[in-house]
Amino acid sequence: MCGIFAVSAAKDNILDDLFLGTFYLQHRGQQYCGLSTYAGDGIKIRTHRGLVRATFSDDLTGLEGRMGIGHAALKDRQPIKLDSKMGEFTICFEGNIINLAELIDELKKQGHSFYTDSDIEVIAKLIAQGDDFVSGIESMAGKIRGAYALIILSRGKIYAARDKFGFRPMIIGKKDGAIAVASESCSFVNLGYEIVRDVRPGEILEVEDGELKTVKVLPSDLVQYCTFEWVYTANVASTIDGMPVDIARRNLGACLARRYPVKADIVGAVPNSGIGHAIGYAQESKIPFDNVFIKYDYASRSYTQPTQAERDREAKIKLIPIPAKIEGRKVVICDDSIVRGTQMKNDLVVKLRKNKVKEIHAMIACPPLRAPCLYGVATRSKKELVAHEKTVEQLREYIGVDGLAYAELEDLSRSIGKPLEQLCTSCWTDAYKV
Amino acid sequence: MCGIFAVSAAKDNILDDLFLGTFYLQHRGQQYCGLSTYAGDGIKIRTHRGLVRATFSDDLTGLEGRMGIGHAALKDRQPIKLDSKMGEFTICFEGNIINLAELIDELKKQGHSFYTDSDIEVIAKLIAQGDDFVSGIESMAGKIRGAYALIILSRGKIYAARDKFGFRPMIIGKKDGAIAVASESCSFVNLGYEIVRDVRPGEILEVEDGELKTVKVLPSDLVQYCTFEWVYTANVASTIDGMPVDIARRNLGACLARRYPVKADIVGAVPNSGIGHAIGYAQESKIPFDNVFIKYDYASRSYTQPTQAERDREAKIKLIPIPAKIEGRKVVICDDSIVRGTQMKNDLVVKLRKNKVKEIHAMIACPPLRAPCLYGVATRSKKELVAHEKTVEQLREYIGVDGLAYAELEDLSRSIGKPLEQLCTSCWTDAYKV
Amino acid sequence: MCGIFAVSAAKDNILDDLFLGTFYLQHRGQQYCGLSTYAGDGIKIRTHRGLVRATFSDDLTGLEGRMGIGHAALKDRQPIKLDSKMGEFTICFEGNIINLAELIDELKKQGHSFYTDSDIEVIAKLIAQGDDFVSGIESMAGKIRGAYALIILSRGKIYAARDKFGFRPMIIGKKDGAIAVASESCSFVNLGYEIVRDVRPGEILEVEDGELKTVKVLPSDLVQYCTFEWVYTANVASTIDGMPVDIARRNLGACLARRYPVKADIVGAVPNSGIGHAIGYAQESKIPFDNVFIKYDYASRSYTQPTQAERDREAKIKLIPIPAKIEGRKVVICDDSIVRGTQMKNDLVVKLRKNKVKEIHAMIACPPLRAPCLYGVATRSKKELVAHEKTVEQLREYIGVDGLAYAELEDLSRSIGKPLEQLCTSCWTDAYKV
Amino acid sequence: MCGIFAVSAAKDNILDDLFLGTFYLQHRGQQYCGLSTYAGDGIKIRTHRGLVRATFSDDLTGLEGRMGIGHAALKDRQPIKLDSKMGEFTICFEGNIINLAELIDELKKQGHSFYTDSDIEVIAKLIAQGDDFVSGIESMAGKIRGAYALIILSRGKIYAARDKFGFRPMIIGKKDGAIAVASESCSFVNLGYEIVRDVRPGEILEVEDGELKTVKVLPSDLVQYCTFEWVYTANVASTIDGMPVDIARRNLGACLARRYPVKADIVGAVPNSGIGHAIGYAQESKIPFDNVFIKYDYASRSYTQPTQAERDREAKIKLIPIPAKIEGRKVVICDDSIVRGTQMKNDLVVKLRKNKVKEIHAMIACPPLRAPCLYGVATRSKKELVAHEKTVEQLREYIGVDGLAYAELEDLSRSIGKPLEQLCTSCWTDAYKV
Repeated sequence: MCGIFAVSAAKDNILDDLFLGTFYLQHRGQQYCGLSTYAGDGIKIRTHRGLVRATFSDDLTGLEGRMGIGHAALKDRQPIKLDSKMGEFTICFEGNIINLAELIDELKKQGHSFYTDSDIEVIAKLIAQGDDFVSGIESMAGKIRGAYALIILSRGKIYAARDKFGFRPMIIGKKDGAIAVASESCSFVNLGYEIVRDVRPGEILEVEDGELKTVKVLPSDLVQYCTFEWVYTANVASTIDGMPVDIARRNLGACLARRYPVKADIVGAVPNSGIGHAIGYAQESKIPFDNVFIKYDYASRSYTQPTQAERDREAKIKLIPIPAKIEGRKVVICDDSIVRGTQMKNDLVVKLRKNKVKEIHAMIACPPLRAPCLYGVATRSKKELVAHEKTVEQLREYIGVDGLAYAELEDLSRSIGKPLEQLCTSCWTDAYKV
Repeated sequence: MCGIFAVSAAKDNILDDLFLGTFYLQHRGQQYCGLSTYAGDGIKIRTHRGLVRATFSDDLTGLEGRMGIGHAALKDRQPIKLDSKMGEFTICFEGNIINLAELIDELKKQGHSFYTDSDIEVIAKLIAQGDDFVSGIESMAGKIRGAYALIILSRGKIYAARDKFGFRPMIIGKKDGAIAVASESCSFVNLGYEIVRDVRPGEILEVEDGELKTVKVLPSDLVQYCTFEWVYTANVASTIDGMPVDIARRNLGACLARRYPVKADIVGAVPNSGIGHAIGYAQESKIPFDNVFIKYDYASRSYTQPTQAERDREAKIKLIPIPAKIEGRKVVICDDSIVRGTQMKNDLVVKLRKNKVKEIHAMIACPPLRAPCLYGVATRSKKELVAHEKTVEQLREYIGVDGLAYAELEDLSRSIGKPLEQLCTSCWTDAYKV
Repeated sequence: MCGIFAVSAAKDNILDDLFLGTFYLQHRGQQYCGLSTYAGDGIKIRTHRGLVRATFSDDLTGLEGRMGIGHAALKDRQPIKLDSKMGEFTICFEGNIINLAELIDELKKQGHSFYTDSDIEVIAKLIAQGDDFVSGIESMAGKIRGAYALIILSRGKIYAARDKFGFRPMIIGKKDGAIAVASESCSFVNLGYEIVRDVRPGEILEVEDGELKTVKVLPSDLVQYCTFEWVYTANVASTIDGMPVDIARRNLGACLARRYPVKADIVGAVPNSGIGHAIGYAQESKIPFDNVFIKYDYASRSYTQPTQAERDREAKIKLIPIPAKIEGRKVVICDDSIVRGTQMKNDLVVKLRKNKVKEIHAMIACPPLRAPCLYGVATRSKKELVAHEKTVEQLREYIGVDGLAYAELEDLSRSIGKPLEQLCTSCWTDAYKV
Repeated sequence: MCGIFAVSAAKDNILDDLFLGTFYLQHRGQQYCGLSTYAGDGIKIRTHRGLVRATFSDDLTGLEGRMGIGHAALKDRQPIKLDSKMGEFTICFEGNIINLAELIDELKKQGHSFYTDSDIEVIAKLIAQGDDFVSGIESMAGKIRGAYALIILSRGKIYAARDKFGFRPMIIGKKDGAIAVASESCSFVNLGYEIVRDVRPGEILEVEDGELKTVKVLPSDLVQYCTFEWVYTANVASTIDGMPVDIARRNLGACLARRYPVKADIVGAVPNSGIGHAIGYAQESKIPFDNVFIKYDYASRSYTQPTQAERDREAKIKLIPIPAKIEGRKVVICDDSIVRGTQMKNDLVVKLRKNKVKEIHAMIACPPLRAPCLYGVATRSKKELVAHEKTVEQLREYIGVDGLAYAELEDLSRSIGKPLEQLCTSCWTDAYKV
């Protein structure tokens, strides 16, 4: 999971937009970040471990320029910078290469050596073998299996490309004299960019001096949008491939309210991921939306927490129940999904019961998760997924709630407004269409 | 503004509770924090610039003990540690001393010299002149004019005291074998402490080995609870002097809905301070609660931002409007109060208009602010208060909304459930009862 | 052990001189440092843990001024800043108060409370009780027993004072329009200050606008200069109370060569403390001076090493023998003193023997150390001093050298050029004249 | 300029030896350092900006192993780690590749891309194209023009190689069960390694389990030892290609005393580089060696100073003259060489004159520098070399001394004990034998 952002202006320094545009993708990755810009001389690049705002707040000087790319990631430092026969360039991407090991072996046999074992180095090396960036991207796309949305900054041009299945979102924005390409449109809202359109599956774009050009579209019979973007991943202020995220979530909440009506006093959310769904449930059911839990603002965020144990402890610190709102009441609590079920079971339910709730009805905005994601959205094994070998009734008992309901695949299709065959549903079906 | 926390156990190490109890008061002050404990040898103390979790996360070793006090503050490092004829002690407080300069002058004339110009050093020096801590607190209380809630850690005992008017909240919690005293009960919820009662105005408590004793109550004819705690300051999970904060906010929102009914499509909040009020407005008006703005989690928090310019820039980065929810719609937006009006005017309204809202009705959960707070809750001058010399209609025009309404003093009294004469209302009336 | 530096100019910003003047006293204390200046508004102060150049290199901005004081110390952060009836002032000192505990008790009984248990806070509090700084210093001097050289920075004037026995060195320098007062004149050499004279024992100076005035001299029958300054403590570029340190060391080396002539191939030093003595020995004996050990420049210094174990490890890393110079040769090795004897025994002798030295003759530039220093120069107990209960012959065997010789008390008097009764010799005699 | 160190043990953890061995080469490069070890699983690597001891002091955990390599450098982070068909390896080197740009161009044309523009990446990529490490090194040696001494750590073996001209020193040491290879033998002295022999020009060594094997010797008709190692670069405790550095320096000083006898009172040095030469001059001339300048220990070292301006300021801070030793006296002052002459002219001479020296005679231990070094020892242009277009008499006047003398080429040959044709003398002759 990462966020990528690129911006090119006809005349102005884009550094502020680059910094903020990347910052507004921080929810897609919190461990590493990097910015790279070009201002006529060498391509500059700076990467940090940590959050965009924390690490770059005193470190933007010297990065001024009219074009640049940025990255926020969970796992590795990007962009990376390489020098090649096309000259120097920086590159970053969001995605996952399934046949990575094979590609590395083949390159080593050709006499190549590798600094890292990361996807991005392989992608960059493959592109650098092309005659130019476009042929390099096309050739790379022919060799890899997997998902990608990538951006390249060369001396004078930006290239952006989305894989032919459209797994990962990528959207174009513009404002006076400037073009931006981003993982999500939430980066555009406060920066004043207007949505132009999504990058098309398979499309390769060239951006120069604030102007945009499609230089190639790799053909494909199939598109496979990642459904999880609307359910959980994306920011509520974003619109992904034509559907606003917060509307999709409200629709999902409303679907749940129709499928699983309950008698309850209030509808609350697991903040923040369940709020959009809870609003939909409340609006459809006419049961009042209310605070059940609040997220305590100062919990974590200021440093990294890569282990599961640390994430668990964080989770317990983060949410405070509102005793006065729940004591003696029947509560509907909405969330986007259940992965291991431990937060629901060990944190939320425990806190609600301690504060003398009368009934708990958990509403989950997608079907039970049954398979890991091949395309890198999450790396959990099947065994970690609590729904892998339990029925919904067993889950309800395990978690300790009075009611438990899940949205169904048709609810996803209906709420997102796309035919089911265009949505990647493998995490629920364990079947891969690609 | 600060948060203070004290804890004493009969047998167990209290360090985790002290750390988390202080952490859950972080919303009362973000610039400095400190912890002090006693474990039979010398009193230990550690203070930091920065957030409790960020600065203490790797720095708790050696602070183990059965009793301790903690502080989170906006302005100065506390606790401070002094050695005196009663032995060494640490002390911290929340409050404001109005006659500080006079007290310092008098002490200097007696041959005293000062490390700082802070309230806490004067309070500590005054207490250190007593024969013991209780007589010292009593004598200090006789000399100062102002508000305080203080805690002292000596070698073996904790003392806690609240000024006789009860300006600042202070509440007692207990769990098996342990007693805690805190600015707010939100510190108790996740730590498993049960509310015992509020510390009484004028009360001096002694806590030893997890046992609590009232050693003195300074008499007073008048109590003056700070109304702003329920309106804005306190955490929604807290109960202050008997009234749950989130219930008070819901009541205020409902009052506004009855006084100022409007035809609108959705009710939203300025997050997070307006959410409780918005829920009340939505429940009473039957207009659906919905996302209008979201607070972007990664905005600031990880470092300090003491200047107004920085706070303004932060504010604009922090909130993202949800375009799909507001375009073409009539929106009620609730907030706790309007201080300078600049955030509403220059940030919120601008963002809503850019995203093509149809109508904006702002609902403010307290009367127009007309005077600075003598007791240290906020240090703005009258001139900074936008309501100081404008009518509500002028304010509406200035801010650029289609409707603007304020709660009234009786709404506060009714929503909080206390007679108006027990509530300090000076920030709205500019009249001080003390 | 500390170094203190004060400077006042008629017109110019003294910050560079203050910074460098304090830096050149770093050999007197490496753990803490601080600078304080006055520029017409409030007195500024900044203290750090660490070395002057390392910690202040990026942190001088805002300290500009026409007067200031600085401190480099082993044990505590100075200057400290206090506000008093004379207004605010900063103060730092070098010295040791023998009756500290009694003075603290007495002040506590008067209702005073203490931030620290340091000498400087007591000294400052005692001075703050005076009617003005001069009467305050005089009254403080009447109450304490011990050694001090202190400087005070008030709003507009600097005060400097040396105790009536003259234990600690303090010297006055001047250059065009500026007066400096320092622990040692090595601070003056590269800054272009010319030595005016030493501060007299008991003298209280007032410095204002680059002009110097003696405002008081506390009378005394006895002076007691710390002999160790010439033997070890002071920098070789300094002149202390009229005698250049490096001349005194050369004289000591020559005394040793006359008293203990040996047949040897080369004369070397334990760098750096033994170099001056070795040069004297070589010049007098006509045996060539040569490299026996070199100090490896990058050993430590960049961080603090407060424990003995760390200092031992450092010592072993620091010195490299020169194999080609010592193999098969008779070597004289000079050092200033032997404290515990462990470095000589476990490091130097081991390294020389491993590199096949033929004979080792150790020449020590002062008598065997037999008592701790009451005045704070070093805090070792008698038990730690290897010479406390061993004869010279036992010491020679213990250390494992072929010859061992010590300078005698008369050598000190003769080499320094002062009558023995003016020199504090208590570390060798265990007898205190004060 | 860098230092490299490798160590392999049969059984023991070599981390301490690796750390200290690398540390003792710090004088060869102060900006970056790195360590890499192998313990049966993956090869570990850690690099830092800063000094070895400062940056690794808290950062050795996890680097335990039975084999490892280390690097201290002025310009870039090494070792670097690559994965290739021979598996993963780390590599570092000292040297300079003259045809770097051509090699990079050629590799780019073959489809390679580069992370850096450093020598080491090119060297590593060329080696990675071989069938194994030995054939890779041989093939690399056939393609590059320049000087190198390199070490490679693979999974289980260390390779070390010195270019066929022997430009850069490299020496083998052993102790019980362990073999070390280092830039200089000063790394061995305190670690207890005994010198085995120098690595031969053109030799490729394989080290495994504390055992050493010559696997190849690249033939050459010519050797060209860098003369500057004995004059200035190497540590005085080292022996380079059979000649102890400190003996060579004493010989050079003695040559100068014979060639240029002067009547003077004392012989001093520019510390530390001139001390060995001054000792030789004093011993030969019978004029006493004495302190003229001391290096103030706390000047710099704790941080990096890459610009010339900063180095100049440092130089002026670093040396303190000893007023009492020089006033009214005729002084011989020895140094290794004169580059730009600015330190001598603007710092040393100024300080001596200010302190009223009678005469200054500067003795320089090598001929006037007339050409930059192609092999990377120093990167100054001809224009920067003050001797480039001045006679010795002009230099004497320019610098402002009463006498100035240089050693001659024959003095170098005689003092080092090698025929002139084996010594690289291009910095004095501007003629390159290779």
